[in-house]
Amino acid sequence: MSEKTISLDLTTEKLYKKAKEEKIETVWDRKKIMKAPCGFGEKGICCRLCSMGPCRISPVKGKGAQKGICGATADVIVARNFARMVAGGAAAHSDHGRDIVHTLYMADKDGNYKVKDEEKLRKIANELEIQTENRDIYDVAREVAEMLLNEFGKPFGTLEFIERAPESRKKIWKELNIEPRAIDREIATIMHSTHMGCTGDAESLINMSMRTALSDGWGGSMIGTDISDVLFGTPVPRETEANLGVLKDNMVNIVLHGHEPTLSEMIVLAAEDPELVELAKSVGAEGINLVGMCCTANEVTMRHGVKIAGNFLQQELAVLTGAVEAVIVDVQCIMPSLVTLSECFHTKFITTSPKARIKGATHLEFEEENALESAKNIVREAIENYKNRQREKVFIPQEKNHATVGYSVESIKNQLTRVMNSNVDNSNPIKPLADCITSGVLRGAAGIVGCNNPKVKQDYGHIEMIKKLIANDVIVVTTGCSAQAAAKAGLMSKDARKLAGEGLRRVCELVDIPPVLHMGSCVDISRILNLVSDVSKYLNVDISKLPVVGAAPEWMSEKAVSIGTYVVSTGIDTWLGVVPPVTGSEEVVDILTNRMEDMVGAKFYIEQDPIKAAEQMLQRIEEKREKLGI
Amino acid sequence: MSEKTISLDLTTEKLYKKAKEEKIETVWDRKKIMKAPCGFGEKGICCRLCSMGPCRISPVKGKGAQKGICGATADVIVARNFARMVAGGAAAHSDHGRDIVHTLYMADKDGNYKVKDEEKLRKIANELEIQTENRDIYDVAREVAEMLLNEFGKPFGTLEFIERAPESRKKIWKELNIEPRAIDREIATIMHSTHMGCTGDAESLINMSMRTALSDGWGGSMIGTDISDVLFGTPVPRETEANLGVLKDNMVNIVLHGHEPTLSEMIVLAAEDPELVELAKSVGAEGINLVGMCCTANEVTMRHGVKIAGNFLQQELAVLTGAVEAVIVDVQCIMPSLVTLSECFHTKFITTSPKARIKGATHLEFEEENALESAKNIVREAIENYKNRQREKVFIPQEKNHATVGYSVESIKNQLTRVMNSNVDNSNPIKPLADCITSGVLRGAAGIVGCNNPKVKQDYGHIEMIKKLIANDVIVVTTGCSAQAAAKAGLMSKDARKLAGEGLRRVCELVDIPPVLHMGSCVDISRILNLVSDVSKYLNVDISKLPVVGAAPEWMSEKAVSIGTYVVSTGIDTWLGVVPPVTGSEEVVDILTNRMEDMVGAKFYIEQDPIKAAEQMLQRIEEKREKLGI
Repeated sequence: MSEKTISLDLTTEKLYKKAKEEKIETVWDRKKIMKAPCGFGEKGICCRLCSMGPCRISPVKGKGAQKGICGATADVIVARNFARMVAGGAAAHSDHGRDIVHTLYMADKDGNYKVKDEEKLRKIANELEIQTENRDIYDVAREVAEMLLNEFGKPFGTLEFIERAPESRKKIWKELNIEPRAIDREIATIMHSTHMGCTGDAESLINMSMRTALSDGWGGSMIGTDISDVLFGTPVPRETEANLGVLKDNMVNIVLHGHEPTLSEMIVLAAEDPELVELAKSVGAEGINLVGMCCTANEVTMRHGVKIAGNFLQQELAVLTGAVEAVIVDVQCIMPSLVTLSECFHTKFITTSPKARIKGATHLEFEEENALESAKNIVREAIENYKNRQREKVFIPQEKNHATVGYSVESIKNQLTRVMNSNVDNSNPIKPLADCITSGVLRGAAGIVGCNNPKVKQDYGHIEMIKKLIANDVIVVTTGCSAQAAAKAGLMSKDARKLAGEGLRRVCELVDIPPVLHMGSCVDISRILNLVSDVSKYLNVDISKLPVVGAAPEWMSEKAVSIGTYVVSTGIDTWLGVVPPVTGSEEVVDILTNRMEDMVGAKFYIEQDPIKAAEQMLQRIEEKREKLGI
Repeated sequence: MSEKTISLDLTTEKLYKKAKEEKIETVWDRKKIMKAPCGFGEKGICCRLCSMGPCRISPVKGKGAQKGICGATADVIVARNFARMVAGGAAAHSDHGRDIVHTLYMADKDGNYKVKDEEKLRKIANELEIQTENRDIYDVAREVAEMLLNEFGKPFGTLEFIERAPESRKKIWKELNIEPRAIDREIATIMHSTHMGCTGDAESLINMSMRTALSDGWGGSMIGTDISDVLFGTPVPRETEANLGVLKDNMVNIVLHGHEPTLSEMIVLAAEDPELVELAKSVGAEGINLVGMCCTANEVTMRHGVKIAGNFLQQELAVLTGAVEAVIVDVQCIMPSLVTLSECFHTKFITTSPKARIKGATHLEFEEENALESAKNIVREAIENYKNRQREKVFIPQEKNHATVGYSVESIKNQLTRVMNSNVDNSNPIKPLADCITSGVLRGAAGIVGCNNPKVKQDYGHIEMIKKLIANDVIVVTTGCSAQAAAKAGLMSKDARKLAGEGLRRVCELVDIPPVLHMGSCVDISRILNLVSDVSKYLNVDISKLPVVGAAPEWMSEKAVSIGTYVVSTGIDTWLGVVPPVTGSEEVVDILTNRMEDMVGAKFYIEQDPIKAAEQMLQRIEEKREKLGI
């Protein structure tokens, strides 16, 4: 990769140049130092599951080791490794979801954590058949929390929220025996089944991977999203800005990075605390400028309009501006490199979670029992660090873009209802959306999600794909680092309508939305599952038959593997822009990109060129339209 | 490794020779074909946790990649990989335990599964504060099962059975925050914490590994053992034989291989069924000869005296005798190579568990709801295969040895009580054991456990270590493949007293036991935890201060990594005879082999020479004795 093309994002290019000049190491440098990745690992044919090995299967058929020492074939080794990636991803999302429910459990009308969306809580309670009438909302909250905590470990039965799926989908899951049971149990069971000397059949391993992944999408992630909305408010459309230009020269800049809103919500509150604002002024700043990074950014921008500093590959670059007093992190996607990088500047790198301590970081454990006080202490650290900022080292690129964010399913339905109110039929807020799709005004919908990856020019995969899709009247919903790429590129401003095809443009104008909708963080892909289910039920057509597609053009983490697997298992074709470590097995490749369609009505596509991928997506959408006769 | 020295076991040598002659591939051949293992994998410095990589850390300090692309150091990468091995092992044991409890839940006085040890069930119920008086034992069983099933997924609190540990130990766990919560939760949480961008601190990862491992030893495994005893009977001393010589030329030979007694107990019953015995005779055999392999062998030999065919590295060799009609397996440690190997003979390789399907095997799913019928169908397959045995291919080595097995904690206490009854003081059955240790008649005790591994001459590590220890008056308890090695070598016959030092010999004569006690399968290491806790409580001395040591001289699986970690976390120094994949991190090696002692009072020793290891163990025992002033 030439140095000129590491990113589509100008701020990245500028700060990367600064890093080069100052000889500060970044992720792209480490990628170069790493040289070519191990071919065995890249193909998934390296097995380290027992100490007879490690084993490596020769990629040349008939030459060298064709089996591991135990006799496991390349197919088995690749499938086991894939299954364990799903387990890692599902565990990350679900453990996040669990923490949110624990927070609901301790919510109290006089406490730091309150029920903010009572209506949503009541709706969930009704769904779980929990009594709500004439009850204190905190009693309801506690009972809902207890029931949802049991979703992680109940000994019997399948997950509650899979009931939200259309009947046709549930039938498929039942027949394949992939209806997820308790979330943690699925993780434990797949770890067991991939243990040395257990499953030796790729198809069985992919089947189990689907069940585990579904326990993420329709379990841990969906619980995480719903209860975050209950506690912190269901997002509504609001304005924000995105990119490193949101950092302020004359303010205490705090970058919130990670995933769980339990921390970030309290930091948002703390940063508004008059005493702390005063403290900031007393150290010479004009105030506190809180900005978000990665999924934490999505959480707080969706609910508070907190500005987005950037996505995954910009976490180091934020520090490189020299203008960041503190990077406050909780869990997931945090580069450990931030330790040494922060040492090149005055920046304090503060870890807060016992699940993600990083050696060399300042660890200030966030105590949920004492949340606001805990958050204030953390913010105070940042403020007191302002005096150490070295002005001569500061360089804040000015690029940023406006974005309208906050498109929860509820707010999408609200927008649609407003349209309907001027019409005759107002029976179901899904109707206008479904009508647009069936009439062909919209050709279909695409969920573009996932990470950045230094293997890919930053944001290029996301942006090129999205542009192609909206130009062809496909409405795009996004989450995670993909959403941030879109926001930075201006695709979430209502202005971006001009890049849309005629049909989509008309819809955007009528409903007053941008052509690319920010639906939240990675766990919020569960919102997309709910939305697609609503459409499927309304049209009485299985999800797999809808002109709906998904993609992760720059995926990087195990979470993305879990996401891709549950999205496909939900019946939505999914394009991967980074080749997963499965190419060492013809069978696994065949299952993922072919046979899964016979099982769940959808499959993976692997295509590194985002424009080609978008063309395939459009073609697939038209095929589905044709089959539906629309 | 020269061909002459693959095993200490003559049957292995003979059948390996047969395999060579007939050009049939075995594990040792695959090891040769694999050539030198990958140095990065062997040192633990290969990371495949996200798709930015795979990454490899240069083993040369200061040269090449010193960090992964995310910035993870070798310390972090090694510790994460170690933690995931613990997760895999804990998951395997615990998922096994869960299945056993599910079986208890469906136990019924008229069903296939019954409560066999009512006294043990009542004892456990009392421990869990479940009412037992005037209740139907099956009501009690159901309530105990419900409560124990919740141990896998309860949202609050720590595990019930850690209460069995001495107070001093519980205090250490509490202070280190490693008291395990729900078992599956620990597995999910450590999978989360090892996800890309979470924990970047080796010590924190090892701390979490300890908590997860404790949820195995004091959770899943302990539950598995206890409830297996309730359902199938607590083992009592009985006679058996061990080694491939237990196969019979003129009988239907069925090898039961795997782990969970739910299957094997029913196969034992089925094989005694008069109709099936008759069927065996009708096809020309003299009857049905059921033999065990790996931990399934331990389960059924401890409870029924079913003979032991061999340990891990003999599973292929059993088929190579040409005299096996069926290998029936459930989960764990099953070489997928058995598929192609069985095809060289008439042997049917039958998988039975949805958690361990193997491509190419005959899959006859074992249905617990219909257990005996299901088992009979499986046995029938074997019998009907007898006619296909090719006499000219049959070669059964005649080697086998007598062994006395069945030393559950209860039966050890019974043996001791019998001794006491001839004495004055009969207050506590632990007293004679404790007295022998404090007086120095026994210098100490050692738990020798774990697998076979083709990196090590089969059984050599186990046998040399055990011989050295017993010769020096250290009583040895064993489980798993180590127990089978001892049984095959004759060390579990009462005759083996002659190999013991004078003190141990006297004790063996007095109590009427062999110098090496078979305590069961790998999950039954929980028996050792209970026994050691009893001694610790009796002497009012923390476990870490007792002259007790552990070793896994030929370990191979992730389960062994979990076991080693919970044994050390319980306060027992543990010797590993195969180098774990941690040498790429000085810090992780330092934590495991040094700093853990400051944390939990015990540590790992890595020593490939079993005799040297035994010498270190003896030295450590004497050091502890000295500190205790005994």
